[in-house]
Formats: sequence, structure tokens, C-alpha cells
Amino acid sequence: MSAQRSQRLLDALFTTEQLSEIFSDRGRLQGMLDFEAALARAEAAVGIVPPRAAESIAAQCRAETFAVDALARATALAGNPAIPLVHELTARVAKADPEAARFVHWGATSQDAMDTGLALQLRAALATIDADLARLAAALATLAEKHAQTPLPGRTWLQQGPPVTLGLKVAGWLSAVDRHRERLARASAGAATLQFGGAVGTLAALGDKGTEVARALAAELRLSLPDLPWHAQRDRIAEVATALGLAVGTLGKIARDVSLLMQTEVAEALEPGAAGRGGSSTMPHKRNPVGSAVILAAAARVPSLVATMLGAMVQEHERGLGGWHAEWDTLPEICMLAAGALARAVEVVGGLEIDPRKMATDLDTSRGLIMAEAASMALAAHLGRQAAHELVEEASRRALREGKHLRDVLSADARVARHLSPEALERALDPARYTGRAGEFVANALAAHRRRSGGDRR
Amino acid sequence: MSAQRSQRLLDALFTTEQLSEIFSDRGRLQGMLDFEAALARAEAAVGIVPPRAAESIAAQCRAETFAVDALARATALAGNPAIPLVHELTARVAKADPEAARFVHWGATSQDAMDTGLALQLRAALATIDADLARLAAALATLAEKHAQTPLPGRTWLQQGPPVTLGLKVAGWLSAVDRHRERLARASAGAATLQFGGAVGTLAALGDKGTEVARALAAELRLSLPDLPWHAQRDRIAEVATALGLAVGTLGKIARDVSLLMQTEVAEALEPGAAGRGGSSTMPHKRNPVGSAVILAAAARVPSLVATMLGAMVQEHERGLGGWHAEWDTLPEICMLAAGALARAVEVVGGLEIDPRKMATDLDTSRGLIMAEAASMALAAHLGRQAAHELVEEASRRALREGKHLRDVLSADARVARHLSPEALERALDPARYTGRAGEFVANALAAHRRRSGGDRR
Amino acid sequence: MSAQRSQRLLDALFTTEQLSEIFSDRGRLQGMLDFEAALARAEAAVGIVPPRAAESIAAQCRAETFAVDALARATALAGNPAIPLVHELTARVAKADPEAARFVHWGATSQDAMDTGLALQLRAALATIDADLARLAAALATLAEKHAQTPLPGRTWLQQGPPVTLGLKVAGWLSAVDRHRERLARASAGAATLQFGGAVGTLAALGDKGTEVARALAAELRLSLPDLPWHAQRDRIAEVATALGLAVGTLGKIARDVSLLMQTEVAEALEPGAAGRGGSSTMPHKRNPVGSAVILAAAARVPSLVATMLGAMVQEHERGLGGWHAEWDTLPEICMLAAGALARAVEVVGGLEIDPRKMATDLDTSRGLIMAEAASMALAAHLGRQAAHELVEEASRRALREGKHLRDVLSADARVARHLSPEALERALDPARYTGRAGEFVANALAAHRRRSGGDRR
Amino acid sequence: MSAQRSQRLLDALFTTEQLSEIFSDRGRLQGMLDFEAALARAEAAVGIVPPRAAESIAAQCRAETFAVDALARATALAGNPAIPLVHELTARVAKADPEAARFVHWGATSQDAMDTGLALQLRAALATIDADLARLAAALATLAEKHAQTPLPGRTWLQQGPPVTLGLKVAGWLSAVDRHRERLARASAGAATLQFGGAVGTLAALGDKGTEVARALAAELRLSLPDLPWHAQRDRIAEVATALGLAVGTLGKIARDVSLLMQTEVAEALEPGAAGRGGSSTMPHKRNPVGSAVILAAAARVPSLVATMLGAMVQEHERGLGGWHAEWDTLPEICMLAAGALARAVEVVGGLEIDPRKMATDLDTSRGLIMAEAASMALAAHLGRQAAHELVEEASRRALREGKHLRDVLSADARVARHLSPEALERALDPARYTGRAGEFVANALAAHRRRSGGDRR
Repeated sequence: MSAQRSQRLLDALFTTEQLSEIFSDRGRLQGMLDFEAALARAEAAVGIVPPRAAESIAAQCRAETFAVDALARATALAGNPAIPLVHELTARVAKADPEAARFVHWGATSQDAMDTGLALQLRAALATIDADLARLAAALATLAEKHAQTPLPGRTWLQQGPPVTLGLKVAGWLSAVDRHRERLARASAGAATLQFGGAVGTLAALGDKGTEVARALAAELRLSLPDLPWHAQRDRIAEVATALGLAVGTLGKIARDVSLLMQTEVAEALEPGAAGRGGSSTMPHKRNPVGSAVILAAAARVPSLVATMLGAMVQEHERGLGGWHAEWDTLPEICMLAAGALARAVEVVGGLEIDPRKMATDLDTSRGLIMAEAASMALAAHLGRQAAHELVEEASRRALREGKHLRDVLSADARVARHLSPEALERALDPARYTGRAGEFVANALAAHRRRSGGDRR
Repeated sequence: MSAQRSQRLLDALFTTEQLSEIFSDRGRLQGMLDFEAALARAEAAVGIVPPRAAESIAAQCRAETFAVDALARATALAGNPAIPLVHELTARVAKADPEAARFVHWGATSQDAMDTGLALQLRAALATIDADLARLAAALATLAEKHAQTPLPGRTWLQQGPPVTLGLKVAGWLSAVDRHRERLARASAGAATLQFGGAVGTLAALGDKGTEVARALAAELRLSLPDLPWHAQRDRIAEVATALGLAVGTLGKIARDVSLLMQTEVAEALEPGAAGRGGSSTMPHKRNPVGSAVILAAAARVPSLVATMLGAMVQEHERGLGGWHAEWDTLPEICMLAAGALARAVEVVGGLEIDPRKMATDLDTSRGLIMAEAASMALAAHLGRQAAHELVEEASRRALREGKHLRDVLSADARVARHLSPEALERALDPARYTGRAGEFVANALAAHRRRSGGDRR
Repeated sequence: MSAQRSQRLLDALFTTEQLSEIFSDRGRLQGMLDFEAALARAEAAVGIVPPRAAESIAAQCRAETFAVDALARATALAGNPAIPLVHELTARVAKADPEAARFVHWGATSQDAMDTGLALQLRAALATIDADLARLAAALATLAEKHAQTPLPGRTWLQQGPPVTLGLKVAGWLSAVDRHRERLARASAGAATLQFGGAVGTLAALGDKGTEVARALAAELRLSLPDLPWHAQRDRIAEVATALGLAVGTLGKIARDVSLLMQTEVAEALEPGAAGRGGSSTMPHKRNPVGSAVILAAAARVPSLVATMLGAMVQEHERGLGGWHAEWDTLPEICMLAAGALARAVEVVGGLEIDPRKMATDLDTSRGLIMAEAASMALAAHLGRQAAHELVEEASRRALREGKHLRDVLSADARVARHLSPEALERALDPARYTGRAGEFVANALAAHRRRSGGDRR
Repeated sequence: MSAQRSQRLLDALFTTEQLSEIFSDRGRLQGMLDFEAALARAEAAVGIVPPRAAESIAAQCRAETFAVDALARATALAGNPAIPLVHELTARVAKADPEAARFVHWGATSQDAMDTGLALQLRAALATIDADLARLAAALATLAEKHAQTPLPGRTWLQQGPPVTLGLKVAGWLSAVDRHRERLARASAGAATLQFGGAVGTLAALGDKGTEVARALAAELRLSLPDLPWHAQRDRIAEVATALGLAVGTLGKIARDVSLLMQTEVAEALEPGAAGRGGSSTMPHKRNPVGSAVILAAAARVPSLVATMLGAMVQEHERGLGGWHAEWDTLPEICMLAAGALARAVEVVGGLEIDPRKMATDLDTSRGLIMAEAASMALAAHLGRQAAHELVEEASRRALREGKHLRDVLSADARVARHLSPEALERALDPARYTGRAGEFVANALAAHRRRSGGDRR
């Protein structure tokens, strides 16, 4: 009856050990038990429960002492794990302190325990994730700074364009990661909110003590006290999903870029190597982009999981049917995939091997064609944008057709020679001189990063 | 390093024990090991591998003897579980029969093992699912037949309309379930296809023996032999996802209907009760629709997972990066959720408690207004559709406004009295006489069901 | 060649006129033309373009003068609408002021025009949406206040539970809507950011004037100046999608609740009626929940569209292939559906017809069973939670079985009589006395709402 | 009030003219009007409606005579376009033939008209799509045959591996496309099913003539007659979505491959060029992968739209609220995107420019490393798989480290020299000799294609 699935093989690949523990069966049970213990104490503080009873209850709230299999069987019948957990907890308390048993879960509903337990799990998970985001941002800042002036071909629509610098590319990643830290901080704050409403959200079972207990309970667990229970208002929970979804999108973008740079034909950057890492059973020479694969897999999976969370917000009346249940595995999955992708991103970015020489070589792959804009702009000052554009377009086509370097085609064109000396043309076609505001943009992103992460230390 | 997540609590609720085992770490390993054993035997049959070596290899292919934790750690580095598994298998074979070790995994790539292993897992999973679909269809046929003539309010846009019969409602479910069986049969046939192509799908490492080995391997595993390897062509795999997605959509529709019929105010049908089932920690009297909740949760989650599978089809070149990895947890998740929802549907439909008296009561909730169409149609023969429609619309508004029964408003209208005697009006307003072709439609669906399931017995 | 599709029939149902105009072909063209005009002016301000040329360019930037069909044909070839638009604009400027033509689009890339145009469209769209969110919040606040004490059955898992008040239900909606306003405000601020980077994001074509032009251009359009161009960093754009996705989730929740309350058997609340609204071609008496249907359709569609936006964030290098293109219809669709759902929600909530008498009737549908918790709590003080729970559970089963009122079963039970007088039992079973902290929670939500919307007036 | 959005700019890029017309407002109206005309004739054939009246009705059923704006305004109130359309149609018939007006829409419900109209639209759309799929398959077959022996690097995880042939790559695409034709044929057959059930699916309004009318109506429209109406059973409709979703997945895979091959650094294949196609406003030399961009955008958008269709299957009772409405724009969108992607794929594949010389060059990019498997296999016969693997792995690392060709490292290794002569080593490292069963696999796929498309001509 109780299911035996384990997921260790793939969890080891796709998530982190910390997140696996937080969202394990034990982690889930402990979250609910922390709620039950804190509820008893809060009710003791308010005078509803005798202090000794509260301690008797709290003493039993250790997840590792509960048998998951039996709870799993009962969950299948009850429809959620809180019901059998409370039942079993009550039985245990009854054995140790019969008087205390009647106070277990007093005034609460199973969703109070599950949602508050989730808030505690999320707090732990998001702290981990934020720390890794900070680490990623730091690694990106280091890389952007180091390579602020390292030129490589810009690429749009997978075609080479004018040059950029590696620092600019990385600064774009960094800037997004810094924004994600702000989004996640807000989502985390929202998710760290107590759920406590009793059967239908009125706390009626606590008579006139409801508010007082709620306040004490929130304080006990260091969670925010909401204006009202939110059993069927899932926006704070769903916002965790969307904030992580946005962050994973950026991680996917980084991994896509890295994996493209790592193609055999490009080979401008490589994921860090390690013993046993990225080997292939048949291609001994390969260094597979394992980190990128993991991140891209997360980026392929998380958006749909976010959609599930958003769709599940349509919950009926005071507590919904099906929508709530759809969240239980989905939000943990999002957290785990995000954490796994992030951990890999830290590794990949932190150990990225850069090959500036290959970048320089690739800047000439097109035989000057990626400098066409530069040439066009240099000539535009003399001929007008449209005429210059057409001249260079024609020259580019000819260079392509005749297998020549753009420099040679242009220097042979009288209209060009009229306005640009050979030296001026050479300068106009030098990639390292045509990275525009790249350096300034990198500096902007680094300054913003420092401002933001300055806040970390305070 | 190796993750410790277990999912037993929620798996017990959301899936079945069989599916949990099929898609457990051990199930996954066994699928790959079955491939390796069969590969050795096929290569022995073709004369590439000594028969004794093949048996030495096959003898080690027992998943329960492998340590999941160590494999998990290595998977995190290698990027997939097949690489460390083959490594460990080779080491074990080497201990028992050093000569045989060099033949392990001969000519294959890790994706061959993983995809073929998946084909074997899917075959087992889909057989289970088809058996449950057949069970569900049988239960639906029984219910449709029994209640072919049981009237209840038809409901459109959540408003009562003219009457239907419970049999008609159930026949609609049945008819869809029968179609899903056909879709799943086709998808299963497609998914039961060997994957065997070596590093890039050419079987080059096997020289001129590639085809011969492939044929023997397919025969060994009772899988179809494809025209060519399909490492980066995922349509057969994705079709399993879409076929299950369609089926879960229908299960969700059934569960939505059941849960709406089970509302306290409607109470025309109830999920079966059972000890420990559907209790509430705070509302002792409630019989919660636990089965419907599980099914609706699956219906909320599976569509997005199907989207992931479709999106993941965009795989690069000979073997993709990220897209393939995104499938590994997603397709099993779809299978498990579908199986869980289906098992619940069998329970819910098989034990559905029907209250024909409450249905009869509800047929009069609107004080005759749901019979407005019947009245309209009865009058249309005399006044024309538009005029009759308008007359009845006006009468209905008046009935609503004055809190009267439609019968009374209509019988007081001279335009009605001119054409319909009181008895004719009464007959026109009798719900049991206004179920149209419902009986015939039920019979159609049952006949089609018998034709289709006749095929099961052959 | 140019497609002829119009969408007016369904747009009239699913979105608003304002949003339809903003995201029409003309709206899209005007967004890009506003960019081109402002660019010319900014470059004039910086001294790159002669002021007269800038005015000649700006004079042509009126979308209504461009032929959509010809641009559509060219878009199909060019791959985006900015390329042919710039081409056509240049031709027009050339006719009116040949000197000016060479300055059109100077230093920019097509994505600069498209993204900045989008930022301008989003600013207009989100202002409209925020105004409607404010209207919705105001209507909800009015409703919550008015019905703070109106009792109706609480409903969990679609089963009646202890009573709540309509005000509490509405306060839950209100509180979420207020949070969505904050989320949208942040997303709007992020989206109102200039895009200006030239071919690969370096502004190289502008020499050392890039930053100066960018600053002037941002000021001209009243958009934020980013630290660096964000062609392939789509998080700000995607955050608009997620913020709207969250908001639509709450609107869907409201519509689900309203449509359930509006069921013929429940009929506790009705969407406002209107001539021609919600009629049925065959059921003249029906008042269909048209508003809820529109909102629920949006809630069914938007989550997937958000997933598309998140998945599309994985864009390659300096400007992506496919991902960017996937946004073009998707984000407008999300905005339009959100605005349509919101406009309907304002109508539905603003005109909701409440039937407190039917609510009162429904409070007794279960013959006292929804007051079981109240009874249980009243008895728990005397018997302990577990014993009281079991007693009431047993009494509830008996009441169900024997078709009796819970009051009658309990009053006949000696264990009850020992602790509760008939009057005390009657009080314990009065729904109006058992709404707990509902009033206080409503007051909390209203106070928070006033604090937040106080900010609107400043 | 009526929305003004047009979508011509992007529709011209993302879909085809034919599909745009089929799913335009006019196409939608004509589908419903075809239903109404056929219904009148079927009822005339059965003797319910006078033949002259049927012709009077049919005479008005021309969509181009209806004013979309007025219908749009009424749709917004009524909740669907069929209600005002029937109203307006009745008014028009009444003007021309007052007697006939009362027979308009007799016995039908608005969903009958909408769903049957959709079936007619889908029939037209899917015929177009199937024709283009056939065209694509033919182009792929031609390409696969022509390049069956053209070697290029195999690529796994974006890293070069052993060689494949272009024919093998294309045969993989072809084989999938052929499977999609079969899936679409089945889905089309299912979708071409009459919807006719009246208000709640019983045809009660037609008395005992319901079945007879349904049969005549199906015949009139050449649609299948279902066992029973399917207003709330959406599996046939959703299967169109999933079949197209699967097909688009394969198109996306083709486009991903083409766009990767088209990268400046790879340049082994190019999308066909054309005047005005794929130009860039700033990079005159670029030939942008416009076709691939369109296809990849479809592949990014369609999976989520399929998820919406699957999620929308959960429709309530006899006719659902919200779910049905969610389909109205979504399924047409899927069809349009699929058709657009397909049309682009036909262009791209049909005109693909192949550069076998660049492919040959790229086969040596890795300085022999992609032939490591070949070397490993050649040595395995002498040293055992594991030992050979390790030897070559070591040699490969050395080649990488020292910047040497693998050939040179291996030939300097005594263990190699012992078993392989210089000539044998050279042969073992020749990519053209190491394409394994590629030729046979191509032949298999072509033979299967001919068998399948043989069916087209019969």
C-alpha cells in the first residue's frame, strides 16, 4: 500500500542535498510538527493550554520518531498527511501525558499545519537559494571585471555580428541575477506568513482568543501575522514559484550561452573539468557540459511547473479541492530544480575556462563581415546611413561570393577610398576598437552589484 | 552528496504502489540492466561475444545488488546514471569473470541503455494503466446501464437546464474512456521500440554486425525494431505523455462532475465511504471527496508536464542537451499521476452512491424553469420558435419575479391555454418525459463499449 | 500573402477595447515609431542629427499613415516588423526631406525599436489595468464592509463546514487584490525601461556618444535608463507576465466562487443581470454567469502563456532566436486576457446580487452538521478535544443515518446533557454566533486596503 | 465597445494566409452558418421543416453579409457568438420569409453550432496541414537520398562525436514526420464529428425525430455521427491539439538543427536566401535564419497552448463554464502556429543550401578526437573494451594537452603499433569509413516513407 519510490539517482543530479532534505518526507513532517509544538506553546502562553501539556506535546514533535510508511498508508485514505499525523501525535502524547492529549492541534485545521509547515520549509529553502544566488552574483562580478575588455564576436540569431566583450556578456547575466535576488527577497518575505484559521478561517473554535493565539504563534515561529487567514488565497505561495521561475529563466540563458560557447567548433569557453565529470561512455575525449545540461533541464521544466502553481490558484470557497493538492509536490519540485540549477551555475561560472585566443580567431571567421556595421558607420558620416549601408551590403555580398576579406573588397572600392585612408579603414575594421560602451556598461553593472550586495553585509 | 529525499507520504496519495516501484531508482536501474544483459546475449547470438561471457554479464544484472547512493554520487558527476552503472557493472563482471568484462555495453551508448530501459518501464506501466482503464470502463458501463433512465437536472454553465439521465452523463464519460484506451494502445505500441544506435546513431562500433545485433536485441527484449535509432526524435515518447494527458483530462472531468454532485447542497451522488477515508480533523461529519481531490490534482498537474515533454522534443543534433534530461523525471511523473488518478477513478465510480430521490427533488428546484425549453418546444409547434421562445421567456421571468411555479404562470396565460390543455401542459412539464434520446445514446455507448472490449477477450 | 484574420468577435468577449487598441497592429507600429521619433530628437539634442532632420523624421512617425498589408508582407520575409517599418519610414522621410533620410534609425537595431515600443505599449496597458484593479479593490471593500456580518456556510473541499461571513470571503479576495497591485506596480516600473544597444548591445555605431544619446532618449520617452542593454535578458518583460499571471489567478478564484454561489441549487449570489446578457438560445429563463465564464477562461489560459514567457527567457547570446519571437504575441495576449478578466470582475463584483435569506437557509441544509465543530468545541472544554470530537462524530453519523437534526441527537445524549443546558446547546449551534474572528479579519483587510489606497491619492 | 485589434503584421510571419482565413471572424461565422443551413435542410429532409423554409434559411447563411462589429458587441453580452448570430439570422430570414423564421436553429443549442462549425474549420485546416506535411516529407526524402553518404560530424550534447551522414540526420527527421502524418490523420478523423445535442445533449426538443435529424445533418455536412453528443467530452478536440503539438516538436527539432548548422562558425547548411529575406537593419552581410526563428517560436509557444487544451478538458456537467471558452482562441492558435511553422519548414528544407566541404573541414576540427571511438573499437578487438577505452582516453587527453592530432599520438604509442599498422590506423581514423549503418538506416526510412506515401496516391 505504501509506495516505495526513491528518487536519489536523479535528485543527486538535479537538486542539492540540502533541498532534498528540506522537502523529504521527514522535512515535511517536521514542518507540521513544528507548527503543532508552537501552537501548543502559543496556547499555553495565552492560557488555553496548561504549560506542562504544551511541553508534553512539544516533546513528541520529532519527525524522526514517526513511521513514514504507516502515515503514508493513512494519508492515502485521509486525503492529506496532516490528519494522520495529528492522530498519531495525539496517541503518542496520550501515552506520555494523558491529560495533554486533548490539547493537541487545538483549534487548528489540517491545512493550518500543512501551510505553516510549508512556510517553514520555504524559509529554509529560500535562504539556501539566496545564499547561492549571492555566490553566483559574486562569481559573475569577478568574471565580468576580469574580462571587461576581452573581445569576442557578438552573436545575434546565432549569427556573428559586431564584437562584444566577454565582460559585457557576463555583466548582462549579473545584472539579471541581481534583480532576481530582489524578487526572491520579496517573495520570501511574503511566503514567511503564518497560516492559522481553523476549519473555515474564522478561528471560531478558539472563541475570543483566536487573535491572541495567532499573534503568539506567529511570534513563536518568527513568521508574519497576516491580516486574515489565506487558505484559499495562494498568491504568496505562487509568487515564490514565479520568482524562482524568473530566476531559472536567467540561469537557463547563462547555460545556453555557455553550452553554445563550448561547442567543439566554437570552444571559446569550457565548463570546469573534474575527475569523473562529463565523461562519455563511448567518446573518451569529450568534456560534456553536464552543468549546462542540468540547468537547461531545469529551465525546460520549471516554467510548466509555475503554470501549474498559477492554475492551481483557482481554489474553491474557504479551502479548495484539487488545486491545493496540486501544489504539494509542485512547489517543492520548483524549489529543488531551482536550487540544483543554481548550484550548478555557481560551479560552471566559478570555474569557467576562457580561451581569449580562440575568441580572437573567431572574430575573423567571417573575414571581416562582422565589421560591416563598423565600416557602414564609418562611411555613413560621409555618405549617409542608407547609402553607406547599401555600399557595405554590396561589398559584403561580393566578399562572400568571391571568398575575399571585406577589408580587401572595401579598399578596392573607389567610393570608400575617397573618404577613408587605408589606415582609417583598418582602424574601422579592428574588432578591439569597436566594442562601443561595453566597458562602461560593465562598470555600471558592477557598481549596481556592489550597491546591492553592500546590503548583504549590513 | 547523495540526496535523501523520499516521497512516500504523497506518493501513497497520488500514485499506485505498482507505478512507484516501476519508476523507483531500482526500477530504473533494472531497466538499464535488462538492456545490458540482453545486449550481451544478442551479441553472443551474433558471434561478437562469447556465450559464456554473455552469461557472466547477465548474471550481474540484478538491480537490487547495486548501491544506489554510490551510483547517485557518480551520476551527479557523469551527467546520467548509465555511465556509472556501466562502470560498476564492468567492475563486477571483471571480478567474477575477467574475460567477460571487456564485452560489457559493447557498441552501445549510455542513451541506448537509458531509452531502452525506459521502454521496458513504460511497457510495464502502460499495461497496468490499460488494465485499470478497462476496469474503469467496465464500472462505467455498469453504472450507465443501471441508471439509463434515472432523471436528474442537466446542468450547463453550472445552471440547471432541462433534465438528463444519470446514464447519459455516465455514458459520456464511458465513451471518452473507451477512446482513450485506443489512443493508449497506439502510444504504447510506439513506445515499445528498441533504442540502439551507439554514440551517434550509426552503430559504427559494431562494424557490419550492427543490424544483426539490433534485430537480435529487439527480439530478446520483445521490443519493436525501428527503421533507425531515435536518440533525438522523441515523438514516440512524447506521445505517451499526450495520450495520458488526454486520458487524465477525462478523469478530471469525471471527478469535477462527481465533486459537484457531492456538494452538500446537491448531494445527488457520493464517493464511497470507508474507515479512515475522507475524515476531517475539525469537521467530524464530513465525507470529503478524497478520490476526486486526487484526480483533480492530477488533472491540474499533468497538462503542464505534457507541455514540458512537448517542449523538450527540440533536441539538438544526434543527442540533445537539456531536453533529454528534462524528460527523465517528467514522463514517469505523468505515468504515476495518471495511474494514481485512474486507480481513484475506479474506486469512486465503482462505489458511487447515488441518491435518485435527491435528483428528483432537484428537478423541481427551479420551480419548473428548467422545463422552459420543453414548454417552449411544445408551444413552438403552434406559435413558431421565436414567438414561443419569447412567451416562455416572459413567463419564466414572471415566475422568477413572483416566486411562482412556471406551470402556474403558463396555465394562466391565455395564449398557452388556447393551444395546450392543462393535461398537455402538465405532460410537457414532466422532467421524466423530457429526456429525449438519452436512452438511445446510452445504448449506443454501451454497444460501442461492448464491441471494443470484446477485443479484450480475444 | 498578407493574412486577413480578425479577432473582433472573441476580443469583444475576452478583452477590453483599450487593450485591443494598444496591442493592435497600429499600436505596435506607433510604439516603434515613437521610438524612432524620440531617437531622432535625442540624437539632435546630442548633436548627431540636425534638428531639422529630427523634425522631418518625427513628422512621418504616424502609424495611421502606414499600410499594414505591405508591411505585413515584408515582415514575413524580414523576420520582424521593425526592419520593413524602418525601410518604409526612411523612404517617406526621403521624399519629404532627402537630407534627413540618412539619419533615420541612426545607431539602433530593430530590437531596440521593438522592445522600446513594447515598453511604451506596456506602460499604457498596465496603467489601464492598475486603474481597473483599483476599481475592483474599491468594489470589494464596499462589499466586504456591507456584508461583514452576513453569515453563510463556509465550504471546504466543496463540502459545507462551519459558517463564515460573506464579508470574510470578500475580504480574502480584497487582500489578495491589494497585494497584486503592489506586484504590478513593481513589474510596471521594471518594464518601463529603455532598450537601446544597437546591433549587439554596445552602441558602437554611435562612437563615444552612445551613453549621451541613451540618456536623452530615455528622458524623451520618460523611460528608465538601464545599466546596460537587455536584448537577451528578458526578466523585466517576463515579470510583467508573472505579475499578471498571479493577478489572474486571484480573479479566477473570485469567479470560481461566484459561479459556485450562483449554481441553481445554491443561488446565494448572482452576477448582475442586463439586457442581452447571459441569455441562452434554448433556456430562456437562465441567467448565465457570463462574467465568470470570461474570467475562468482567462484563468485557464494565462498560466500556460506565462510558462511560454518563462521558457522563452532562454535566449541565445546577444539576441536570441525563437525565444524572442515567441514573446511577441504571448505577452500582449496575457495583458489582454488579464484586462478582460479584470473588467468583468469589476462588473461582477460591483453588481453582485446577494441573497442573505438563501444563505440563511443553506446554513441549515446539513441539519446542524456544519455546527458539529462548534458543538465539539463547546464539549471539548468539558470532555477533552479527542473525546468531544469522537462524541460529536458519532452523533453526526447518527444524525445522518437517521435523518435527524444534530441538535436533536445531541440533546438526547446524556454525556452532552451533563455539561450543556438546552439553551447552551442551542447557542452553541447558532451559526450567527459562530463566525469567530471574521469581523476582525474583515476590519484588518479594510484597514490595510485604506492604507494602501491612501497612496493612490497622494 | 467592439474591439479593433488586427494581427496582420505577425500573422504574416507566424501563420499562413489559408489558416488565417479559416480562423478569421468570417471563417468562424461561416462555420456556424453552414451548421444552421445544413440543420434546416436535414430537418426538411426529415419532415420537421418545410423545404421552402429550409431554403430561405440557407439563403441567408452567408457570413460576408453579416456585420462583425454588431455581432461582437452582442457576443460580449451573450457570452458566445452563436447566440447573437442566430438572433440576427432569424431576423434576416424573417424579413425575407416570415414563415421560415420560426424554424431557424430548431432544436439546437448554441454549442451545437459552435462545435460543429469548429469541426468544419478544423477539417479545412487539417487538410491544408496534411498537404504541407506531405510536401515536407517529400522534400526530406529527396534530401536524405541525395546526402545519404555525405559525412559530417555527429554531435551529442553539442559536442562533436563520431561522424554521421547528412542523410542519416535528415532520415531521422523524415521518419518522425511520417509518423506525425498518421497521428494527424487519426486526430482529423476524430475531430470531423458532428455536435448536435440541443440544450443538454438529449435532443429532447426534437421529440422522437432527434436521431433521424442528427443522421441527416451529419450526412449533409459529411461529418461522422457520434454515439452521443460530446458537449463536455473534449477529447477529440484536444487530440487535434496534441497531434499538432507533437508535430511542432519535430519541426522545432529540425529548426534547431538547421539554425545550429547555420551558425557562422559551423556554416555547414544555410536556409535558402531570397530578396528581402532575413536581412538585418544593422548587419548587411547577415543571412538570418528567419524560417528557423518562426519555427522555433512556434515550438516555444505550442506546448503551453496544448497544456491549456488539456487543462480545459475538465468541463462541468453537460456543458462547462470557462473550460469550453478557453478553447475558442487556443485551438485555432495551435493550428495557425503549426501551419506557419510547417510552411516555413517546407521552404527551409526544400531550399537548404548544403556545404559538404565545410562538413569535411569540421570533421577534422577536433584533430582526430571524434574518431577516438573508432580507434577505441579498432583496438578493443585486441586489448578489450575497457583497456582500449582507457588507452584512447589517455591518448585523447594528451592530444588535447599537447595540441597534437590524435593520429600522431596514437601512432607514437607502442601498444597501438603492436596491433595496428600505420595504414590500419589511418583507415580506422577515416571519418568516411566510420558511418556504420547510416546508409542502411537512410534506406529503411526512405522505404517506409514510400510505403506510407504510396497510400496518398491511391
